[in-house]
Amino acid sequence: MLALEGIPLGHRFTFLEPSPDPPAATVGTVIPAAYDDPGALARIAREADVVTYEFENVPAASAAYLAERLPVLPPPRALGATQDRLAEKQMFKSLGIPTAPFHSLDTPGDLATALATARLPAVIKTRRFGYDGKGQIVARSPAEAATALDTLGPGLIAEQFIHFERELSILAVRSRDGRRVSYPLTENHHRGGILRASYAPAPGITPALQARAADFAARIMDQLDYVGVLAIELFLKNDRLLANEMAPRVHNSGHWTLDGADTSQFENHIRAVTGLPLSAPRVPGPAAMLNIIGELPDPSAVTAVPGAHLHLYDKVPQPGRKLGHVNITGSDEATIRASAEQIWALLPGEPPVLPAGRRPG
Amino acid sequence: MLALEGIPLGHRFTFLEPSPDPPAATVGTVIPAAYDDPGALARIAREADVVTYEFENVPAASAAYLAERLPVLPPPRALGATQDRLAEKQMFKSLGIPTAPFHSLDTPGDLATALATARLPAVIKTRRFGYDGKGQIVARSPAEAATALDTLGPGLIAEQFIHFERELSILAVRSRDGRRVSYPLTENHHRGGILRASYAPAPGITPALQARAADFAARIMDQLDYVGVLAIELFLKNDRLLANEMAPRVHNSGHWTLDGADTSQFENHIRAVTGLPLSAPRVPGPAAMLNIIGELPDPSAVTAVPGAHLHLYDKVPQPGRKLGHVNITGSDEATIRASAEQIWALLPGEPPVLPAGRRPG
Repeated sequence: MLALEGIPLGHRFTFLEPSPDPPAATVGTVIPAAYDDPGALARIAREADVVTYEFENVPAASAAYLAERLPVLPPPRALGATQDRLAEKQMFKSLGIPTAPFHSLDTPGDLATALATARLPAVIKTRRFGYDGKGQIVARSPAEAATALDTLGPGLIAEQFIHFERELSILAVRSRDGRRVSYPLTENHHRGGILRASYAPAPGITPALQARAADFAARIMDQLDYVGVLAIELFLKNDRLLANEMAPRVHNSGHWTLDGADTSQFENHIRAVTGLPLSAPRVPGPAAMLNIIGELPDPSAVTAVPGAHLHLYDKVPQPGRKLGHVNITGSDEATIRASAEQIWALLPGEPPVLPAGRRPG
Repeated sequence: MLALEGIPLGHRFTFLEPSPDPPAATVGTVIPAAYDDPGALARIAREADVVTYEFENVPAASAAYLAERLPVLPPPRALGATQDRLAEKQMFKSLGIPTAPFHSLDTPGDLATALATARLPAVIKTRRFGYDGKGQIVARSPAEAATALDTLGPGLIAEQFIHFERELSILAVRSRDGRRVSYPLTENHHRGGILRASYAPAPGITPALQARAADFAARIMDQLDYVGVLAIELFLKNDRLLANEMAPRVHNSGHWTLDGADTSQFENHIRAVTGLPLSAPRVPGPAAMLNIIGELPDPSAVTAVPGAHLHLYDKVPQPGRKLGHVNITGSDEATIRASAEQIWALLPGEPPVLPAGRRPG
């Protein structure tokens, strides 16, 4: 999607991709190698003008090697800040961005202190390499917390389980010269730790809340001298926003911008990392995004739904794998929701419902 | 642009392209051969599921060869109907679609009859292979008409020169099962026979005029059992629409739909020729399209203009060559026009003005 949006800006793309037969081969050159392959990294350093990533578990050493030789954007320090959930939460805190109470958890000796801070029920997570709800356990008692430590530890973080009202995200972008734009807050619905649906602009968000979320993003981006799209997942509870986690890349909850905004997150990311001015995105109406997970629906049925826009990733179907998404545009929220219901009926699994408590995320 | 919009629908593209280093190589496989190369055509027949074209001077024999073997859409009869300006005008007439008065012109003996019908001033055009204002002469006297016949003939058509008020186009789409959608009428501005700018929706168009243009397209598409995008160029004079010419393909005057409509002409064309349902396009606000001709502007300057969306074709600059376009989106026409003026200042040549008379087109 970055390439599809970047090609019209005059750019050409080379992808470092360890998986066989990557979809990216359709829109650029693929270097089929591991993320830490020295020859591949040397070739990128030699041939590319700028490097970006759409996956935050890029090895820090690879990013550092490249960053010594050409611009790597977002800057590798953003990878460092997001690859460790404890460091991430500590940065939020240091910047005055509210979070759920949290504490590090490495040994049985830490349990009492960690639970005194996080309180029960708590979410126990690995600090590194978690995604889509993997590497985390909800503990409702000290015994469950001890078991979680046994199962996942050491190198954990314990966080208070937040009974949030809504889960939101903000997509913001910062340019090389420090200018920023952001998209309207998006409402996200997960199931099994995987994003299933996003609605944007999130209904009923006040300008004050929107400004607050944009300010959180601005503080983080300025702190990191960030360039590119940054996504922050937020919980809304009692009119307060709590930062849950961030991603230093284009984000699934921003995929609606391909059809629902005049400038997509992908185009603005490419503009940012290549040194072009950003576009303050215009969002002329409501939009929704529904993920296609595990099985492919009938394209004829999907595209027959009013306002539906199909985006397939050319991936082999596998249970739990994101294979594409459907964006929905329309004149009003009722139209969007009616089309979303039609799309859900075509997708495998149950439609998502807004969970009563915090998703394990 | 067809490939960029078709890849997310799950399609892959192979291009038959005689020019060296075609931009299409970035988004698919290129067969570097002439349009009538037997080996290339056989390979396409073997490998493709469906064939389309974005250039109406495809040799009829190539289209016929392929159409015997796999779907060629729009159907080759649409190529036949548009490759000859006389046949095209005769079809308009037979379908009750008004045109400027016209007459065939092949020999000096035809001159008197042709000018009695077309009247002076007349536009004398070659019937075949004209584009971008080439192969036509405006004759203001019988002597000039005789000279035009000498210069261009035989195989000409003489048409009345229309002092139109505005030049419009309608982009319509028909699916394999005969359903149709269309885009709002677009106002086009030419200079030297080349499209310079389009504004959509064309300001001040009544629903009755829009319906009339859509009806013209419907008559033509139904007559030809057409599948895909059809563009019809129209003159507006005294609240009447006269059909000037049509193009059996995605059209430069529809490039604004990439940013100004929720579904572009390119996506709807791909939907049509691959048998998917069409999307009734939603156009949430005004849009403009300015062609980049001959020289490339500074991308930083272009993308700094509010609402500007840069689309480059990866072509080597040459005088008169279309190298890309800039779409402009915004909340209202004043915003669009302000941005358009900023973009014009960055592009070579004078900004277009609405010509007082009919452009030679």
